[in-house]
Amino acid sequence: MATSFPPVVPGRFQMLHGGDYNPEQWRHRPELLDEDARLMRRAGMTAASVGIFSWAALQPGPDSWDFAWLDAVFARLQAQGVGILLATPSAARPLWLAEDAEVRRMRSDGTREDPGGRHSFCATSPRWRAAVAEIDRRLAERYAGHPALLGWHISNEFGGAAENGRCHCPRCIAGFQGWLRRRFGDDLDALNRAWNSAFWSHSYQDWAQIRPCDRSNDGLMLAWQRWCSDLVLDVVRLEKAAIRSASAAPITTNMHGPMDFYDHGAVARELDFVSYDCYPDIDGSPRDAEAVAAASFYDGCMRGLAGGRPWLLMESCPSQPQYKPRMRLKRPGMHRALSLAHVAGGSDGVCYFQWRAGSNGHEKHHGAVLMQDAPTDTRVFREVAELGADLARLGGVVGAACPAPVGIVCDVHSTWARRVSGGFQGEPAPAELAMTHHRCFHERGIHADLVDADSDLTRFALVVVPGVALLRPGFAARIEAALAAGAQVLVDALSGWYDDEAAIVAGGRPGPLAGLLGLGASEEMDVLRTDERVALTVTGGWLPAGTHAIGHCDLMRLAGAEALASYAGEFYAGRPALTRHRHGAGTSWYLGCRLERPALAHLLARLADAAGIRPPLPEIPAGVVVRERIQPGRRYLFVLNPQPQAVQVGVGPGWSDALGEAAMPATLDLAGHQAQVLTRPA
Amino acid sequence: MATSFPPVVPGRFQMLHGGDYNPEQWRHRPELLDEDARLMRRAGMTAASVGIFSWAALQPGPDSWDFAWLDAVFARLQAQGVGILLATPSAARPLWLAEDAEVRRMRSDGTREDPGGRHSFCATSPRWRAAVAEIDRRLAERYAGHPALLGWHISNEFGGAAENGRCHCPRCIAGFQGWLRRRFGDDLDALNRAWNSAFWSHSYQDWAQIRPCDRSNDGLMLAWQRWCSDLVLDVVRLEKAAIRSASAAPITTNMHGPMDFYDHGAVARELDFVSYDCYPDIDGSPRDAEAVAAASFYDGCMRGLAGGRPWLLMESCPSQPQYKPRMRLKRPGMHRALSLAHVAGGSDGVCYFQWRAGSNGHEKHHGAVLMQDAPTDTRVFREVAELGADLARLGGVVGAACPAPVGIVCDVHSTWARRVSGGFQGEPAPAELAMTHHRCFHERGIHADLVDADSDLTRFALVVVPGVALLRPGFAARIEAALAAGAQVLVDALSGWYDDEAAIVAGGRPGPLAGLLGLGASEEMDVLRTDERVALTVTGGWLPAGTHAIGHCDLMRLAGAEALASYAGEFYAGRPALTRHRHGAGTSWYLGCRLERPALAHLLARLADAAGIRPPLPEIPAGVVVRERIQPGRRYLFVLNPQPQAVQVGVGPGWSDALGEAAMPATLDLAGHQAQVLTRPA
Amino acid sequence: MATSFPPVVPGRFQMLHGGDYNPEQWRHRPELLDEDARLMRRAGMTAASVGIFSWAALQPGPDSWDFAWLDAVFARLQAQGVGILLATPSAARPLWLAEDAEVRRMRSDGTREDPGGRHSFCATSPRWRAAVAEIDRRLAERYAGHPALLGWHISNEFGGAAENGRCHCPRCIAGFQGWLRRRFGDDLDALNRAWNSAFWSHSYQDWAQIRPCDRSNDGLMLAWQRWCSDLVLDVVRLEKAAIRSASAAPITTNMHGPMDFYDHGAVARELDFVSYDCYPDIDGSPRDAEAVAAASFYDGCMRGLAGGRPWLLMESCPSQPQYKPRMRLKRPGMHRALSLAHVAGGSDGVCYFQWRAGSNGHEKHHGAVLMQDAPTDTRVFREVAELGADLARLGGVVGAACPAPVGIVCDVHSTWARRVSGGFQGEPAPAELAMTHHRCFHERGIHADLVDADSDLTRFALVVVPGVALLRPGFAARIEAALAAGAQVLVDALSGWYDDEAAIVAGGRPGPLAGLLGLGASEEMDVLRTDERVALTVTGGWLPAGTHAIGHCDLMRLAGAEALASYAGEFYAGRPALTRHRHGAGTSWYLGCRLERPALAHLLARLADAAGIRPPLPEIPAGVVVRERIQPGRRYLFVLNPQPQAVQVGVGPGWSDALGEAAMPATLDLAGHQAQVLTRPA
Repeated sequence: MATSFPPVVPGRFQMLHGGDYNPEQWRHRPELLDEDARLMRRAGMTAASVGIFSWAALQPGPDSWDFAWLDAVFARLQAQGVGILLATPSAARPLWLAEDAEVRRMRSDGTREDPGGRHSFCATSPRWRAAVAEIDRRLAERYAGHPALLGWHISNEFGGAAENGRCHCPRCIAGFQGWLRRRFGDDLDALNRAWNSAFWSHSYQDWAQIRPCDRSNDGLMLAWQRWCSDLVLDVVRLEKAAIRSASAAPITTNMHGPMDFYDHGAVARELDFVSYDCYPDIDGSPRDAEAVAAASFYDGCMRGLAGGRPWLLMESCPSQPQYKPRMRLKRPGMHRALSLAHVAGGSDGVCYFQWRAGSNGHEKHHGAVLMQDAPTDTRVFREVAELGADLARLGGVVGAACPAPVGIVCDVHSTWARRVSGGFQGEPAPAELAMTHHRCFHERGIHADLVDADSDLTRFALVVVPGVALLRPGFAARIEAALAAGAQVLVDALSGWYDDEAAIVAGGRPGPLAGLLGLGASEEMDVLRTDERVALTVTGGWLPAGTHAIGHCDLMRLAGAEALASYAGEFYAGRPALTRHRHGAGTSWYLGCRLERPALAHLLARLADAAGIRPPLPEIPAGVVVRERIQPGRRYLFVLNPQPQAVQVGVGPGWSDALGEAAMPATLDLAGHQAQVLTRPA
Repeated sequence: MATSFPPVVPGRFQMLHGGDYNPEQWRHRPELLDEDARLMRRAGMTAASVGIFSWAALQPGPDSWDFAWLDAVFARLQAQGVGILLATPSAARPLWLAEDAEVRRMRSDGTREDPGGRHSFCATSPRWRAAVAEIDRRLAERYAGHPALLGWHISNEFGGAAENGRCHCPRCIAGFQGWLRRRFGDDLDALNRAWNSAFWSHSYQDWAQIRPCDRSNDGLMLAWQRWCSDLVLDVVRLEKAAIRSASAAPITTNMHGPMDFYDHGAVARELDFVSYDCYPDIDGSPRDAEAVAAASFYDGCMRGLAGGRPWLLMESCPSQPQYKPRMRLKRPGMHRALSLAHVAGGSDGVCYFQWRAGSNGHEKHHGAVLMQDAPTDTRVFREVAELGADLARLGGVVGAACPAPVGIVCDVHSTWARRVSGGFQGEPAPAELAMTHHRCFHERGIHADLVDADSDLTRFALVVVPGVALLRPGFAARIEAALAAGAQVLVDALSGWYDDEAAIVAGGRPGPLAGLLGLGASEEMDVLRTDERVALTVTGGWLPAGTHAIGHCDLMRLAGAEALASYAGEFYAGRPALTRHRHGAGTSWYLGCRLERPALAHLLARLADAAGIRPPLPEIPAGVVVRERIQPGRRYLFVLNPQPQAVQVGVGPGWSDALGEAAMPATLDLAGHQAQVLTRPA
Repeated sequence: MATSFPPVVPGRFQMLHGGDYNPEQWRHRPELLDEDARLMRRAGMTAASVGIFSWAALQPGPDSWDFAWLDAVFARLQAQGVGILLATPSAARPLWLAEDAEVRRMRSDGTREDPGGRHSFCATSPRWRAAVAEIDRRLAERYAGHPALLGWHISNEFGGAAENGRCHCPRCIAGFQGWLRRRFGDDLDALNRAWNSAFWSHSYQDWAQIRPCDRSNDGLMLAWQRWCSDLVLDVVRLEKAAIRSASAAPITTNMHGPMDFYDHGAVARELDFVSYDCYPDIDGSPRDAEAVAAASFYDGCMRGLAGGRPWLLMESCPSQPQYKPRMRLKRPGMHRALSLAHVAGGSDGVCYFQWRAGSNGHEKHHGAVLMQDAPTDTRVFREVAELGADLARLGGVVGAACPAPVGIVCDVHSTWARRVSGGFQGEPAPAELAMTHHRCFHERGIHADLVDADSDLTRFALVVVPGVALLRPGFAARIEAALAAGAQVLVDALSGWYDDEAAIVAGGRPGPLAGLLGLGASEEMDVLRTDERVALTVTGGWLPAGTHAIGHCDLMRLAGAEALASYAGEFYAGRPALTRHRHGAGTSWYLGCRLERPALAHLLARLADAAGIRPPLPEIPAGVVVRERIQPGRRYLFVLNPQPQAVQVGVGPGWSDALGEAAMPATLDLAGHQAQVLTRPA
């Protein structure tokens, strides 16, 4: 990561307020382009993401180029004080380029896809790669020195097409085989053993026999997923190199969705700052609390990728995305509350998809700041402009830390390993487990960073390892290092199943974690029906009285650890359900079953206590989001009420309004959808 | 439309009673063919649809022809007084013809389909087109002068295979490109602007780049649907020309299903009369009322296509279709009641699929008048024969008008535009909205014609425009003409979204309708969860007290109109929900929300009052179908009870039994499933 | 069938206790292979199924062979007294063989499948067939004389890939055409008539036009299913011939699943003994009773295929299969109870999939006796070893008869015919009907054999014919023979619909069965909604008072039979619902409707009484499984409680414990999941 984040327009606002802006759609209507620039200033916009889908406009043919219109856009926006995050246009290539068949993906049956949608290219195509490198380089050379340039936005939402959009052309297959050859040091026997390909007689006699279409080898399927992920990384590197040939401005790419399309940690390590597109499903029902918690989870993912530093909300919808089952309007204030929640979670800005909705094509109904050429004096525009004014007042927050004492391991390799492996389908996926654990901290106002299994864990007082089924090389050592540093570490029974090739760990579960946990190999795991639960006998108050196991019950053998809860029923009555083991300066915990959320929250609160973690407020009403951000010498407290009913929140004395500088009462009265940002000296 | 409908057998019955008859299946069993003719006479059949799937029998090889068996069928039926609707056999080509690959469709991945099913041809194949034209011409030349010939039945149920049956061969793709070139006057930039193809960088640099497989451009998807629809029209024209080379007898094609496969209005304009295949899902449950209303809706569609004139029920099932989830038998009397309901809705006949079920192949379980070679002394046969006798007595109804004071616009281009556009998926499709509005009139015994957006609207006192999202060229002018003629016109908030290319209307919704409605551009539209509703404040009794909005709430701006209901809740409390605007000699109404059916029925009843519309009876019991048909000097009143329980219906004095000539009481006692046809001088 | 079943290791246990064993996975870990052999002996294993997926290990290249490792496996197991069921490896070919494109299947669109999964070969490929024959022959030559060889296990679970795994290569299509040509005696007109292909103009002008992809001809679809089934039979014959070239040891193939992939009767006639892989879905809920009944149903299927003789449970899971929705552990004792239930149902052994789970590949989570290289001192291992000891004590049961006085016809041709025919989709499939009827006998402890329509029926006192829609050639005669022999024969209304080409029977339902039943052709069949039922008027106590018809109501005409129940409602009130007809020395019964299970059980109990059938115990508590097996001079009574709650079962005096020789009380107290085997002189 570079230190230059967030990129700012010198002398103006610091907190970014921006959005995707696709002016090439309106080149035939210059009066709209003029209006855009004027209204951006009025809305307090400081940035626009330009060029995301401009390839066909910039390069209408193999040998023809047109930058004049983009020059004019730069000039118009600069004149209004709006900076530019310039995108590389690789997400959608022009149609003339797709006429070369090698640019289009091949399906697994050998037929070629037609051009269409986005990310519909073969990433190994030399023709495509050369074309991307050339246009990126030309953009970098032309705009590197432009004063409006804030930074670079590589491509757009990589990997969205991954599930049904992988290329099976001979070149890609050969690339996959070469990738495997390197991974296994040219030792085909090693691959056969690692994948146990002798089962079902699938042993490979030659590297050229390895094709990704055999869904009956878990190791193969995991490898194919990783190769496809590495292709994303490879394209990011290709584009980064092209940009860097002429420009040193900071680089990001906008991440999105469930983040299981590719290894986001690997890509993040190539970027100067990370950014995310967030579209929570808000419909005014009680389920909104879950959507808000999920958005906060992705904030934590970004902090994890950024090593705890700020990041950027690159896309959000000021109204309603067209993809939701119901396009229910966000109620007045809700957009502000949700946006400030991301700032509370570490985003040093709020950006939109998109500034002005296109008239046709796709996404014409997707909520935007402006809708086509309809009148602009709308509620949505006014709320956006008011938020712009608020963000301008929050310049002091820029760069502030989100102190995260908790690290939750959420590793996409475990997600992939579980997905390719049969069995235990009814139990939650790793990311769902991570989200459940995160929510317990979210509701107490505690920042918890989501980190992958390749991350250092020693910066956390409490480390949670939920559903980390696949043990990455070195992961056990990183757990041990956290324990050595004095952390509390909680491991659950869906962790520690597979080695790095999705094979069952040697010697039985939880493999190399057993020693750290003071356990022997687990004997077997019971999986309960959804109408079943098993009572627990608890010791020491780590779980509430009356706690039940749900989901699964691991049958562990103690080897040094002590039991703090045990099963009170079934044929395994008396066997341990929760164990504790001192290791190094820290303590390791093992939870053999799943818990309902209140019991889990109780356990995590006790573990946080044990780790010396204190929440920002002693009491937070249900549904209210509270977070702190900290600058040297100054604290900011975000208190947000993204629900219709009013609440009272005791914040204690000494706070003043970060947006208005008035002193604030010790108890806040927050109307429905109201949000406050408080501040005081640290 | 020709004036020759319905085609009749001179000197015998006038109301058609017929059915599909596929004797080529039984050529090896002449005794069955003899029995068929005899039993047709006994069942009061006056028509048979012959030849629908006879191509292989008529032309067993490229150069071999066999009309002798069909000559014999003509002779047999003529001898029994049964006329023939002669079908062209294009719906299923013989297998020898499919050996030529160009005749078979190409999938979008470039692979060829195998022959099978029906309508599995490439409609641009020169080989196929020449073969169709030749067999049609030969049939026309041979039978044009035959006294049993009633008319022509082109192909069968066009478009049923459309959803997964489109051809992507290079010739079809080139045809599509040429069609676009003509549509856009050879101006590719115009196409790019109309489709806003710059979004996602999908601008076309060459017509040859336009392929239908890109699902990310709404305009493209709509155009492809239209091109596929125009191919149907093109085949109809091809076959019509071949027939007309030798025969002037009236021509139809049997429409079916939800009528969204192709533009039925465009095809209807080529025909002499329209016909429909109707298979309501009747299972004896309370849901039957919905099925009966839906059947009546399609009657209204046929009247709309026929400009208010009679049409023909071309297929119906005297027992149970094999496609229903449960093959529950129609109870005694039910077939008669449902059949007479179609006559009440303007059909001058009742026809079946099919006369005798085939022994194997497909549809062998589909209810027919006769089942294979099983005994013929069945309940179904007896009921069919009794209906035949009734129809013979209803000759006076033939040609009678169905006076329809209400026109409901139901336009397939809006259906397609909604389908290709994201957003608002939870809200009802245009045809569903039209059906909901139609049912309010159906239950009051009022004929309401379903007309497309290309139809003249000045013949209606009340025009309803529900969900007409796409504004066809001239549609606003046709609304204005209806207003000028003094009509009441109701427009809803799902109308007026798109121009003719599925792009958002310029200047904001409802675009060119705004002025007619006295409204400015709508600001935004709220979509409610299914568990939400918004109370309305009502004025003037146009809605019942206590009415709530459901589904969506449009946030309108008045510009001349007056508000007759307004939202009483949410952040838009006080904004108008129902408006009225005097325009020309008429009045335009705008409904910004959806209503539950009782409230909608109340509003439509009030609007009908305002339009001077009077229902045939003041009070109709729930579930009873009442309709009038009118001849010069004579009225017919159909009173049908398609439900198991008995009802009383007050019809007033002066009616006699149209089937038996007895005078009828002022209050009818109708048993379950009983149907009466009454008459009196006009 | 050979008389040599079950194959036994001379001088040791007689009841087989074995399992799939895939040691080629562990060739690099000889210490595990040594442990395997030692632990097999400790677990009382007498057999291992070896070689199932060993092709790549045995023949790593076209011209390289490696039998040394398999020789060592034979030696290791022989040393521990474990016999070998040697598998042919055809279920999964080595990848080098799949490099020849002809070995891989072609999809219906003409594209080739990639290698992967199992059974992914084209069965007509000469290259593949030669390779199978060669490796089978080499195995037979090498191991025919080995003392550890118990018998042959051909391939593995044929047909599992059938649904989406059929080959459409030109050679297969030509093979299908040739098969049809032989079936119809080279008479294409006969085929056209039989399939009524004139419907939809699908008449064939040439055999070469017949392709399987036309889903609109029921006869064609049935024929394609049969051809695919015959391909399985053909491969079995190919492999049998290769084995028999050198070995006379008994041959089986392991059947599995719903047994509708191919004609299992045809394959069984090629085998020396039959075997089945059984994985009931046991999750501790009340639904377990249904799973236990289903397992018992498949026991009955095996007895039917074996002509009433013993068979072998070839695969079962000692823990939980990974394919279940929830991998809930089997509770202690449950594995023993379920295993002994199969022995009670005629299996002379208990075998597992698998001995040791593989580390990766596929099925790594599938419960096995040992899990990878985890510790082996597990509950599962102990329970397997205890069962091994029990089986050793049950040597006297080997070969004992399962006296089955009831035959239920369950014919896959009817399953296929129903599947390819439209209509009546809501009514149960033939196998579901057979299972429902079987369960009534299962719960009374009566062995009922499931036999196909090609089987002799004269060995049964009671024959049930449920849903036998397709009448195989000679089936009516076999019914008549059973009646002539004095049987009670019950036919239901979903029987007797189709001839052998899936065409409707001539003259109306139930065609040739009508005379045997004393009925005329049925007039029509009502199908009820799931919320409907029709009261019956009953006579003679054959049905309980208050019985209702559900599902369907056939409207029959009596022609000699007498009515014992009639419909009491609907328009067909008074028409017969249950009829009886004396025919020959027996009695035929026709049930025109479906019944709820208690009423059906009542009817079947009365029919069993009429047939002189006596259950083994007068009273069996709900959920308890009771069965008898009989040796000359000795009876064995299995009393099994596969449910959590304890029960008491009155067995009467005179029994002793077959496992411990103690005398047993007249009333057994069975704990949850407990199982007892009793014996006494006959």
